[in-house]
Amino acid sequence: MLDQWLYDLFMTGTDRGADFLQLSRAAAPVRGLTSWLAGAVRAAIMDGRLPAGTSLPATRLLAGDLGISRGVVVEAYQRLADEGLVSGRPGTGTRVSGLSPRPVRPSNNPPPPGRAGATVLPQPWRARAELDLSPGVPDLSGFPRAAWLRAERSVLDQASVAELGYGDPSGSQWLRRELAGWLARTRGLRAAADDIIVVSGVAQALALLAQCLNARGITRIAVEDPGSLGSRDQLAHWGLATVPVPVDEQGLTVGNLAGRDVRAALLTPAHQFPTGVVLAPGRRRELLDWAVAADAVIIEDDYDAEYRYDRAPVPALQAAAPGHVAYAGTTSKTLAPGMRLGWLIPPGRLHADLVAAKHAADLGSPALPQLALARLIATGELEHHIRLVRKRQRARRDALLGALRVLLPEARVQGVPAGLHLLITFPALGLDDTELAERIHRAGVLVHPLSWHRQLPGAPGLVLGYAAHTPDQLREAARRIARALRG
Amino acid sequence: MLDQWLYDLFMTGTDRGADFLQLSRAAAPVRGLTSWLAGAVRAAIMDGRLPAGTSLPATRLLAGDLGISRGVVVEAYQRLADEGLVSGRPGTGTRVSGLSPRPVRPSNNPPPPGRAGATVLPQPWRARAELDLSPGVPDLSGFPRAAWLRAERSVLDQASVAELGYGDPSGSQWLRRELAGWLARTRGLRAAADDIIVVSGVAQALALLAQCLNARGITRIAVEDPGSLGSRDQLAHWGLATVPVPVDEQGLTVGNLAGRDVRAALLTPAHQFPTGVVLAPGRRRELLDWAVAADAVIIEDDYDAEYRYDRAPVPALQAAAPGHVAYAGTTSKTLAPGMRLGWLIPPGRLHADLVAAKHAADLGSPALPQLALARLIATGELEHHIRLVRKRQRARRDALLGALRVLLPEARVQGVPAGLHLLITFPALGLDDTELAERIHRAGVLVHPLSWHRQLPGAPGLVLGYAAHTPDQLREAARRIARALRG
Repeated sequence: MLDQWLYDLFMTGTDRGADFLQLSRAAAPVRGLTSWLAGAVRAAIMDGRLPAGTSLPATRLLAGDLGISRGVVVEAYQRLADEGLVSGRPGTGTRVSGLSPRPVRPSNNPPPPGRAGATVLPQPWRARAELDLSPGVPDLSGFPRAAWLRAERSVLDQASVAELGYGDPSGSQWLRRELAGWLARTRGLRAAADDIIVVSGVAQALALLAQCLNARGITRIAVEDPGSLGSRDQLAHWGLATVPVPVDEQGLTVGNLAGRDVRAALLTPAHQFPTGVVLAPGRRRELLDWAVAADAVIIEDDYDAEYRYDRAPVPALQAAAPGHVAYAGTTSKTLAPGMRLGWLIPPGRLHADLVAAKHAADLGSPALPQLALARLIATGELEHHIRLVRKRQRARRDALLGALRVLLPEARVQGVPAGLHLLITFPALGLDDTELAERIHRAGVLVHPLSWHRQLPGAPGLVLGYAAHTPDQLREAARRIARALRG
Repeated sequence: MLDQWLYDLFMTGTDRGADFLQLSRAAAPVRGLTSWLAGAVRAAIMDGRLPAGTSLPATRLLAGDLGISRGVVVEAYQRLADEGLVSGRPGTGTRVSGLSPRPVRPSNNPPPPGRAGATVLPQPWRARAELDLSPGVPDLSGFPRAAWLRAERSVLDQASVAELGYGDPSGSQWLRRELAGWLARTRGLRAAADDIIVVSGVAQALALLAQCLNARGITRIAVEDPGSLGSRDQLAHWGLATVPVPVDEQGLTVGNLAGRDVRAALLTPAHQFPTGVVLAPGRRRELLDWAVAADAVIIEDDYDAEYRYDRAPVPALQAAAPGHVAYAGTTSKTLAPGMRLGWLIPPGRLHADLVAAKHAADLGSPALPQLALARLIATGELEHHIRLVRKRQRARRDALLGALRVLLPEARVQGVPAGLHLLITFPALGLDDTELAERIHRAGVLVHPLSWHRQLPGAPGLVLGYAAHTPDQLREAARRIARALRG
């Protein structure tokens, strides 16, 4: 796989570690090895020392030569891939891309639709964005590849034959036991393993709940406004009309639920999407009172409760009223959306119907990823990983926030203490945020106009996801946004 | 993890390989290492040298001591687990079980429902069966753990960040490209990567198709009779009434489709479930003529086309009429049902709606298993694995067939040249096969009465899955079935 150029570099010296781009472990910093390595390769690509098409050394080889862990090399390559500077496929190695800088997260795929409004842009627009600040996309270069592989190895060594067969449609018993403990510790949930249904992400949780509510004659559901366009589309597909209820500084305006002829509501109480507000204690009480009085079901989408930077997150609503709350969580924001793993903890009276719906959908979720996740929880590696990512995300948030305050003083910034995105609104400006987002996009930055996530009229704004970008990239994005706003 | 007893065994000798049960690599056969090792441990459990609760040595340790590959030890342990003699969970090691022999495939789970009628038994009955000959369950002890782990490692090393994100709902582009080539080579399919939708097993393919047909006003679907109870239940859940059409020695009696007011049909043409007949060439032509004339959709469930023992399998129907056939395949019978991986290749006019339905169901299947499967196909390891399993399954079929011919001469045996199960019918006996299956179950053997898979009246019979059992176990099962029939 190494081309002649790299072959020469690698095979002619005696101290091969010093050969690739004259890198030397001795010159590397004590901390930040990944940034150092990625920076060195990036510079070489930019100044032409590594021309388009050049194969990078295999990760194993380079790690050995430099005397550093292979994970560092893998992550450095990932960052470069994230920036569009290199690309690779399993089995063919990593090569320097033809275009530099290429669009971030390039893809030949049709528009990859996510939840939390990750991907509602038309493809041609999306494909041309150099910096993609769509909300809902985590830092995928941080996926804990080594830990996941260790977990898979352990699981493949020791999983029983029955665990690879047609399993329980509600999921691996082991994973559900681990999840019960994990959710009790981190989110205050009151749930036993048998209460949990493993699902393919919160999207499937919504699909199953919508089917189940529909079968009980419930055809309307209250949603937050602004709120996730992706979730709204999902519910609508499954036959639930979404009734918008305004969100203010304290979260959903619960008083507006009365008289709307709804017996179900979807909320993101820990960190409202996209405003970032936390449902205030008084509103929580009011909401639960409403659910009891109306015999209603609250769907609690706990989509990024793991990212709270100032204090411990508020316990889940489910803990206060397990009989009225269907709790849904996911690994999409902590590991990767591509895992398609989540969990649903419904009120007891819906449990059997939901398991039947899960069975009818796909007989159950795949076994190996469930077992690997169970092991990551059991060994503490998931918790460790989330701690690391939280720290990194906090630095990214700080960078974006700092740049916005300097460059866009007229914007009101919301959603600061938690999550993976910020919301900026322009209460004083009578602008069209879709038109603004289009201008920003022409400057190479993709953001969601707030109006996409509204059903009701409201102040214009922009939703800015910061998870997938470095502080430098985020500052650059803020500069371009400011220029577009002025222009 | 090793208890004192094993600790002593392992740590006191100098030639540790000779210590565990006095096993010595020198005494092992050149071929059949796995059977040799499993046999030695089984004997020690049976005669009390390894009492209940004893930890077996870690696979890595024992493999090192004996100088054999770890895969051999893993598989030997799996076989013993399959027989209920040992049990293990990831992280806690493998221990000798309390009961010996325990029921095969014990489970605390609710009845794990499969397709092809794998699991329609009520739980208490199922849990007590010593030998489970339910059809549709492959030999899970043969799962290629080492190859799968290698594939995962490669994928985790090299997958791009975009591949872990919200992906294309129709599946990984790489996997679809590999599948297109694989299905062209092995099944004669005419399909491009973009025609393929990756799904969570054939069960999800049926769910999506049923939704899509329903949305076009199709509410009735012809099914084979006898035919899979699991598939029938699946279609019924999604609102399609199943219209039974008899199967004879040439497969579906296509002439009976006319006048039944159906514009869709589900078939298993390569190896009909449960009769095992192949759809005859004349019937294939007739069926395709009907589909064109009625503008109908044929769903081709190619559920175990990989297991043909006498000659190459008949090419898929889809190859002859891609505009009228929705082809569905799965790894459930070649790898494991717990993978929940399959593919759907619909007529072009249904494609967009099915992708939308897949998106609404779960946004797409998990990324890592898709990439690992792509790699197993690309490296030829999947093909290699299937060749090995086919050989083993042929030996199992021969063992069961031989025993049935001696012990049950009055039974007519069908489905011999292919698949993972046999059908025996008793045309001359006026017996109730459900009652017979109950008697057989009291003798510790679980089989499906043929009547479970019928909607129309017909000869009594039994469906016997042989994939998950050794020749010795299958002969024992045949003895007990014969005794139950006479008793």
